[in-house]
Amino acid sequence: MSYSIDLSKRLEESGIIENSKISIEKDGMTYVGTIMPHPNLSAPDVIILKVANGYNIGIRVDQDSKIKIIDKPITTNQKIEAKIKENKNLPTLVLVSTGGTIASYVDYRTGAVHPTLSASDMINSVPEINKIANVRARVLFSVLSENMNISHWQEIAKAVAEEINNGADGIIVSHGTDTMGYTAAALSFMLGNVPKPVVLVGSQRSSDRPSSDAPANLIACAQFCVKSGKSGVYVVMHDTLSDDSFAVHIGSRVRKMHTSRRDAFKSINIEPAANIDKYGNITFNMDLPLISESRAIARTGMEMSTVLLQYYPGMNPYVFRDVFMKSKGIVIAGSGLGHVSDTMAPLVGEAIKNGAIVIMTSQCINGQTNMNVYNTGRDLASAGIVSVFDILPETAYVKLSWVLANYSKDEVIEIMKTPLCREFSNRRVF
Amino acid sequence: MSYSIDLSKRLEESGIIENSKISIEKDGMTYVGTIMPHPNLSAPDVIILKVANGYNIGIRVDQDSKIKIIDKPITTNQKIEAKIKENKNLPTLVLVSTGGTIASYVDYRTGAVHPTLSASDMINSVPEINKIANVRARVLFSVLSENMNISHWQEIAKAVAEEINNGADGIIVSHGTDTMGYTAAALSFMLGNVPKPVVLVGSQRSSDRPSSDAPANLIACAQFCVKSGKSGVYVVMHDTLSDDSFAVHIGSRVRKMHTSRRDAFKSINIEPAANIDKYGNITFNMDLPLISESRAIARTGMEMSTVLLQYYPGMNPYVFRDVFMKSKGIVIAGSGLGHVSDTMAPLVGEAIKNGAIVIMTSQCINGQTNMNVYNTGRDLASAGIVSVFDILPETAYVKLSWVLANYSKDEVIEIMKTPLCREFSNRRVF
Repeated sequence: MSYSIDLSKRLEESGIIENSKISIEKDGMTYVGTIMPHPNLSAPDVIILKVANGYNIGIRVDQDSKIKIIDKPITTNQKIEAKIKENKNLPTLVLVSTGGTIASYVDYRTGAVHPTLSASDMINSVPEINKIANVRARVLFSVLSENMNISHWQEIAKAVAEEINNGADGIIVSHGTDTMGYTAAALSFMLGNVPKPVVLVGSQRSSDRPSSDAPANLIACAQFCVKSGKSGVYVVMHDTLSDDSFAVHIGSRVRKMHTSRRDAFKSINIEPAANIDKYGNITFNMDLPLISESRAIARTGMEMSTVLLQYYPGMNPYVFRDVFMKSKGIVIAGSGLGHVSDTMAPLVGEAIKNGAIVIMTSQCINGQTNMNVYNTGRDLASAGIVSVFDILPETAYVKLSWVLANYSKDEVIEIMKTPLCREFSNRRVF
Repeated sequence: MSYSIDLSKRLEESGIIENSKISIEKDGMTYVGTIMPHPNLSAPDVIILKVANGYNIGIRVDQDSKIKIIDKPITTNQKIEAKIKENKNLPTLVLVSTGGTIASYVDYRTGAVHPTLSASDMINSVPEINKIANVRARVLFSVLSENMNISHWQEIAKAVAEEINNGADGIIVSHGTDTMGYTAAALSFMLGNVPKPVVLVGSQRSSDRPSSDAPANLIACAQFCVKSGKSGVYVVMHDTLSDDSFAVHIGSRVRKMHTSRRDAFKSINIEPAANIDKYGNITFNMDLPLISESRAIARTGMEMSTVLLQYYPGMNPYVFRDVFMKSKGIVIAGSGLGHVSDTMAPLVGEAIKNGAIVIMTSQCINGQTNMNVYNTGRDLASAGIVSVFDILPETAYVKLSWVLANYSKDEVIEIMKTPLCREFSNRRVF
């Protein structure tokens, strides 16, 4: 915390730590609430209190203000390891915890979301899950999903393969929602024909809020892992705003399409693989690979210089020259069916001559690219840009990074055009 | 065309030009069809024929092949200026033609879409429009929308203002669909409180196809211009897949959300301003500014170094250093509520210190940014990144380019936070 020296001392002397319940008397008013972490941008003499209505207020304290402790903090982030007796008749799932809102314990409106709830806490907060499976917790790391990077994807893939090869019947990966779609795509390619279900799950409301979607999402995940009999990488999240319907998304086809709604995750250019109701009944919308007893293999190589760029009118080849020349792989979210302007096209051509692989996708998100429709598209295609149907720009970026690191240069375009984990529909719709 | 010298000569001698109906006899087969423009990437001895089923075939001709002309081309792109008698009782609309599929005359599947249908042809192809208004045509230019750049936006804005000040009661701007959303946003800012309706329209199927959406879209535009009594910049396109429902989108809030569907254009984070049925009845979903007799003013200055970037995990500050240092304005489509990773944050901070204005939007497209929720967001905010509610990343890019050129440095952030043409909802929803 970054309080003033004086205020820090007063808090310490009163035994007040983060999350203590305190009262502050000032100018004849008494404020009661939970003391929140002190944000860096707050003044050093301001205490942030979470008050009864759930909102936070900032109170500037001075020498005359009286600060008293009412209660020690409720230690929701204490490591009480799950003491559930193992039920030999139930399958075993491993919950790999990586951080994010689903693993946080403070009201997200307060500006103080901390990714510190442990995986066991998550399990303990949803006791129903123990009737579905024996769930073991493994805390891999604790990062907000905007800070997830390629090395995190690699660690998760390795941990998932390890747990499967150690006997897990399914893996739940708890993850922040911001970049969960990217991670799901990465695991889809890295884990290939994974023999068990690997389900990513997040929440849009933190776990200590009554409106949290975390428990319902976790239970739906466990149901899918145990009952579906299917393998592969999926994302399970709310399908609607209520707690009674969940979508199982193909890991390479899912995108966060809303900043805050519970049903923010959508399958793009494909139906969800399955839907789950509140009783755990699964309706499949397509054939999915069956579980098997083969070993899981994680191929985690990634080319780190790959870039994802959205084309826009006015995009300046002078400004982007360096990006195009430094990157071995370039994914463009072009306009419409897959275009860039005639002012950008020469730079793209130059990058290709320089050895880069350039993949064209569409910023429309929905629908598929087709570079044979307009002459500009044909010119780009003849310059060597490759388009692959209805793949998401984000998935194309992840796949290209992975393919560049795992295949020889000659094979890259062929592999990009081959669907590996349902990442595109291999047909023209017009 | 880029045929071989020999083949060019043979075609010329037979009086065959682009779009002639011809027959080719080769190896005992006779092919009949319309000769298409010769794409640059085709071999010099290959003729592309559009055959009866609508598809194109390439035929390699040699000395023994017989090529005969059957019919001269149907000259749909001839400049037959509209000879409609002016009806003094009807208002006057000006159709400003800029190119795109709506102004093209060849089946788009052939790879030979040419933006050459004139504005008068467009009017003549929809005779019903003359019962709604006296429509004058003005061909501004003829470019596919992926080649539209900032100078085109400036030309369109000037032409629109000029026509309004010369007495037009409304302006229809025909435009390719790829970047129509960007142009609509640009005109919204450049034309400010424009006193008449300015409606952009495109088509997803070219005008010579029976399934074209061009005539219905044009009529809906004219209806809105004449009947609504409202001013402002809008986009009118199909609301559904059938020809009986049209949406009127706020120019700064519309995005092409599908590569090919007729109802590809969607209002984001807001309802369409109005809907129009096939009889021209308008249902308004919100209050819109009324038409007036003031003069139209086009403020067309634009800062050309502005960039639009999507954040993604693995985004490499080393690769993007040059982009951040060369740009006076940077719009980031961040993850979730408006985030970038802790690895990218220092580069953003450096760009701000270097004098750049950085605006945070969300790649979720739907929903609004809120940088006060997570600590990472607070850190970015305290570094000087500004977020503005639920603005589209593309609109933020256009607005920032415009604001940087039309206001002093001190005013830029304040103007970015002020809604000028309904480009964002000025309220927190949570």
